[in-house]
Amino acid sequence: MPRYKLTLEYDGRPFHGWQRQRNGPSVQAALEAAVRAFCGETVDITAAGRTDAGVHAIGQVAHLPLPREVSVEAPRNPLTPTPRPARGVVREATRGAADFPARSSPRARHYRYRTVNRRAPLALDAGRAWFVPGPLDAEIMQEAAERLIGHHDFTSFRSTLCQANSAEKTLDQLMVRRQQDQIDIFASARSFLHHQVRNMVGTLKLIGEAKWSVDTIEQILAARSRSAAGPTAPAHGLYLIRVDY
Amino acid sequence: MPRYKLTLEYDGRPFHGWQRQRNGPSVQAALEAAVRAFCGETVDITAAGRTDAGVHAIGQVAHLPLPREVSVEAPRNPLTPTPRPARGVVREATRGAADFPARSSPRARHYRYRTVNRRAPLALDAGRAWFVPGPLDAEIMQEAAERLIGHHDFTSFRSTLCQANSAEKTLDQLMVRRQQDQIDIFASARSFLHHQVRNMVGTLKLIGEAKWSVDTIEQILAARSRSAAGPTAPAHGLYLIRVDY
Repeated sequence: MPRYKLTLEYDGRPFHGWQRQRNGPSVQAALEAAVRAFCGETVDITAAGRTDAGVHAIGQVAHLPLPREVSVEAPRNPLTPTPRPARGVVREATRGAADFPARSSPRARHYRYRTVNRRAPLALDAGRAWFVPGPLDAEIMQEAAERLIGHHDFTSFRSTLCQANSAEKTLDQLMVRRQQDQIDIFASARSFLHHQVRNMVGTLKLIGEAKWSVDTIEQILAARSRSAAGPTAPAHGLYLIRVDY
Repeated sequence: MPRYKLTLEYDGRPFHGWQRQRNGPSVQAALEAAVRAFCGETVDITAAGRTDAGVHAIGQVAHLPLPREVSVEAPRNPLTPTPRPARGVVREATRGAADFPARSSPRARHYRYRTVNRRAPLALDAGRAWFVPGPLDAEIMQEAAERLIGHHDFTSFRSTLCQANSAEKTLDQLMVRRQQDQIDIFASARSFLHHQVRNMVGTLKLIGEAKWSVDTIEQILAARSRSAAGPTAPAHGLYLIRVDY
């Protein structure tokens, strides 16, 4: 069975996340409907990151099995504008190896979390970044971030709905960068727990506001309790930017 | 009469440009209505750049005269969300000098024109950048851009509706920068003719596509005719980023 690797970009706002569901539009359902429209096949498409409602993607990777060969050009841009205007596109489509699986094999997933730290609300970045009006110290946030890197039990940073067997994960990168009023947080790991990036960002924000000290990080990790960490940062600041295989 | 200098950010899409008009929402009318709502004053607000329909601003500067003193904090964020969600905000409000005029005195206006050069249509950048699917050579565009810098008669690059007395302008900067699939064109001058930036961008694009040679620039300038230059690039790629006084 020929398999195609699709690199997807989407604005997360109109979608109830990647995963197909009953109560609203999902990226998965939109993509599967588009595939049906272009080649008549009913397929089950899996993705490297099951992005939540409102989370954006620049480089999501999806895995499209088809019962017959199509031109590698054909699967490009099948993510038909639903809803209009277009909120999702296929950036690239390549023929994958016969055993190419999107969900289990990524070597690294890379996320970017965008925060705009200024007093005026957002106009151009509304719905695309977290608006934080109060002072944030990005250097202190970076210091705290460094203490999260490595192999830890991330129970305190995972959603209580998380279905992973283990909360032990290795965080390869967590980097805080300020450029004028933009603070970006880059997170990379082989895999993340449910809400892990947003819960880490919500915690770093409290530290950046000097509401918590940098040393809180060790206590939060040791507590192994979701209630020990900060609140979940909003979905609309998060971007799945790349998946490495 | 106290005068305030407002720095504005707006998404140009819902507005029919800066200037108040009968047939649709304008930034000027939205701002004037917001000022009426917060202090009951009916004012006439002028701006440093009369941005066209669809053109965005990150650092537009507007001049707000008020018949009485208000706290300098008061004029912040009066650009009430019209239409919702918020498409415009006041980023900063400062007390200007008594003779502070927004329209006549800027030392420099800075624009950025965003192009995305890739095969896949835009999802996250739809309505915020010009989508150019075919190959563009940014180095050749830069070479052509350099020939436009300086003092010239820009008749070929101005809208036939332009009301300026003279088409002679001094272009201080025209810089083409590629970063992966993004091509940005930065243009700076004391003032621009109507559509000048977009007409220069439309011309550079034809040169970047190798449809025209770099040497065409001299012929276009010498022709002093709008029909000699390339088409007007779309409004939604253009951003007024800063005004210097």
